[in-house]
Amino acid sequence: MAYRKGKSVIHLENAPSFVSWAAAVGKKEGEGPLNAAFDKVFTDEFCGEKTFEKAETHLQKTAVNRAVEKAGLRFEDFDIAMGGDLLNQCIGTSFSVRETGIALAGLYGACSTMAMSLALSAVLADGGAFKNLLCVASSHFCSAERQYRTPLEYGGQRSQAAQWTVTGAGAAVLTANGENTPYIPDVIIGRIVDLGIKDAANMGAAMAPAAADTIAAFLRDTDTKPEDYGMILTGDLGFTGSELLREVLKADSGIDISAVQNDCGMMIFDREKQDVHSGGSGCGCSAAVVCSHILNKIAAGELDNVLFVGTGALLSPTSSLQGESIPGIAHGVLLKGA
Amino acid sequence: MAYRKGKSVIHLENAPSFVSWAAAVGKKEGEGPLNAAFDKVFTDEFCGEKTFEKAETHLQKTAVNRAVEKAGLRFEDFDIAMGGDLLNQCIGTSFSVRETGIALAGLYGACSTMAMSLALSAVLADGGAFKNLLCVASSHFCSAERQYRTPLEYGGQRSQAAQWTVTGAGAAVLTANGENTPYIPDVIIGRIVDLGIKDAANMGAAMAPAAADTIAAFLRDTDTKPEDYGMILTGDLGFTGSELLREVLKADSGIDISAVQNDCGMMIFDREKQDVHSGGSGCGCSAAVVCSHILNKIAAGELDNVLFVGTGALLSPTSSLQGESIPGIAHGVLLKGA
Repeated sequence: MAYRKGKSVIHLENAPSFVSWAAAVGKKEGEGPLNAAFDKVFTDEFCGEKTFEKAETHLQKTAVNRAVEKAGLRFEDFDIAMGGDLLNQCIGTSFSVRETGIALAGLYGACSTMAMSLALSAVLADGGAFKNLLCVASSHFCSAERQYRTPLEYGGQRSQAAQWTVTGAGAAVLTANGENTPYIPDVIIGRIVDLGIKDAANMGAAMAPAAADTIAAFLRDTDTKPEDYGMILTGDLGFTGSELLREVLKADSGIDISAVQNDCGMMIFDREKQDVHSGGSGCGCSAAVVCSHILNKIAAGELDNVLFVGTGALLSPTSSLQGESIPGIAHGVLLKGA
Repeated sequence: MAYRKGKSVIHLENAPSFVSWAAAVGKKEGEGPLNAAFDKVFTDEFCGEKTFEKAETHLQKTAVNRAVEKAGLRFEDFDIAMGGDLLNQCIGTSFSVRETGIALAGLYGACSTMAMSLALSAVLADGGAFKNLLCVASSHFCSAERQYRTPLEYGGQRSQAAQWTVTGAGAAVLTANGENTPYIPDVIIGRIVDLGIKDAANMGAAMAPAAADTIAAFLRDTDTKPEDYGMILTGDLGFTGSELLREVLKADSGIDISAVQNDCGMMIFDREKQDVHSGGSGCGCSAAVVCSHILNKIAAGELDNVLFVGTGALLSPTSSLQGESIPGIAHGVLLKGA
């Protein structure tokens, strides 16, 4: 059974756990510091497909197939897939899951999708009727640029606060059986926080207040402190947003997470050598980082108690053109090892 | 606790139930046969807002506020909102839920969204950690036309198999407490079925095989027959898709649902008097029909055992332009009265 700790945190008594995970990324991500942790690095941005959108689906399929294979399961062993992406109508996910025959619950949470998928899947697994669950999310730099910003051929200048959409996908297999590590004892579904920021080239700033809200609620409800965590991992605020998050949490709640905070968008690229300005972003960023480096480290006993907080900016090009500010949201899952 | 009946149906022992429901629709929907069941009919397609997208958010807010008010609850009494819409990046929902402060899990299931929201919410409610849950979905004819098809000003001709996107929103308040009626004892999350149909002007045909798959699985797993149901309610296959569904189910599985099948897209408009070709569609169609006429009838004891199967076409304009066929999906919830 699941029950509430405080108002927002959901404690899962059956502690659903990870059977396997996998990540597939593009060339630039493969040239970054996490290279060795990825299951597959594509050097062709089309991944052998004819369009960027199909390439994104290909990335997802690669991560999904690898994770399912590692788990020693077949598609028919799964009770549900929960996933999403940034493409209009989430076609990255629909077309990737299409041939598996797995029941699909499509999610939309922008870059918070992987965290939302893990959180909801963990609650479903805890409830008794879902044994094997597939969590997946993806993004692709080229499909995102032409959908959200300008055609690549235009060669638009990027603001220093802007993040670089990761070409990548991450997939994880969760099970109701809590005997594996890592496992998920606590989750939190976030609420929208919108402080009126309208700059779509600075989404880290738009999402930081939502991350602060979710982290403060999680610490409050679980009666824990930042030093109780091996890492408080946001994804993806980038450098600009992470700095804001640390400032906001300290100023508003007196919580100092600077010693333990890291961000998937800061980890996936080498800031000095790779020209990505404020770091990585996109549903595929935190999905690929968590489903490789982070879960690997926890499984190896090198890291523990990771509070993964996925952040999403719930805008659209249309809402921005219509003068709307950017609603931010953040969902969290606690990843535990031993 | 929840457990599986067979492979696909999830039985909810705690039988989550409806506290309240509400629907807000546009002028054309208000002129249809269900007029008296709607909580609010807007005669202005902008609902007093400046754009069609903001009008859609306004519709959602109207339905949400009315449902929450009827429930005698405040926003802070809710543990989660689960909802979605057809707009790119689901902005109808994000901007409608933004000011409520309710934790949000954004869903994407095209026109199956309301059924998916009810199904997932019912499972969460059954699990113990969610007391009051808000389910919502919407669509707007004008925002959908310009996003998916052609600008309204273009005056494009419509195919006879095409459906008319409903301007409407439906919202329901579910609770873990199973003492109200209607309640939800069983749900099913569907899988994608794609038989290769590529005609985006005939989405009923693309979704019918998915509806057939979900209905056949539900009847098989619960060991029931069509005559055990007061209604098998699809939403939204329209006239063309409903006919196909009945044919496909009979031919492939020997199941004859013709005596009990109805469709939200067939019910919301008057086929003789309103020029809507194959009937209504859009996330808001089944949301508005279920959250008014259907739940009203069940609560009044005039209808019982309604298997509501929401159907979605998981395409995008981009996937169609790239030559892809249309993946269909259908999620189901059993709505019981007495």
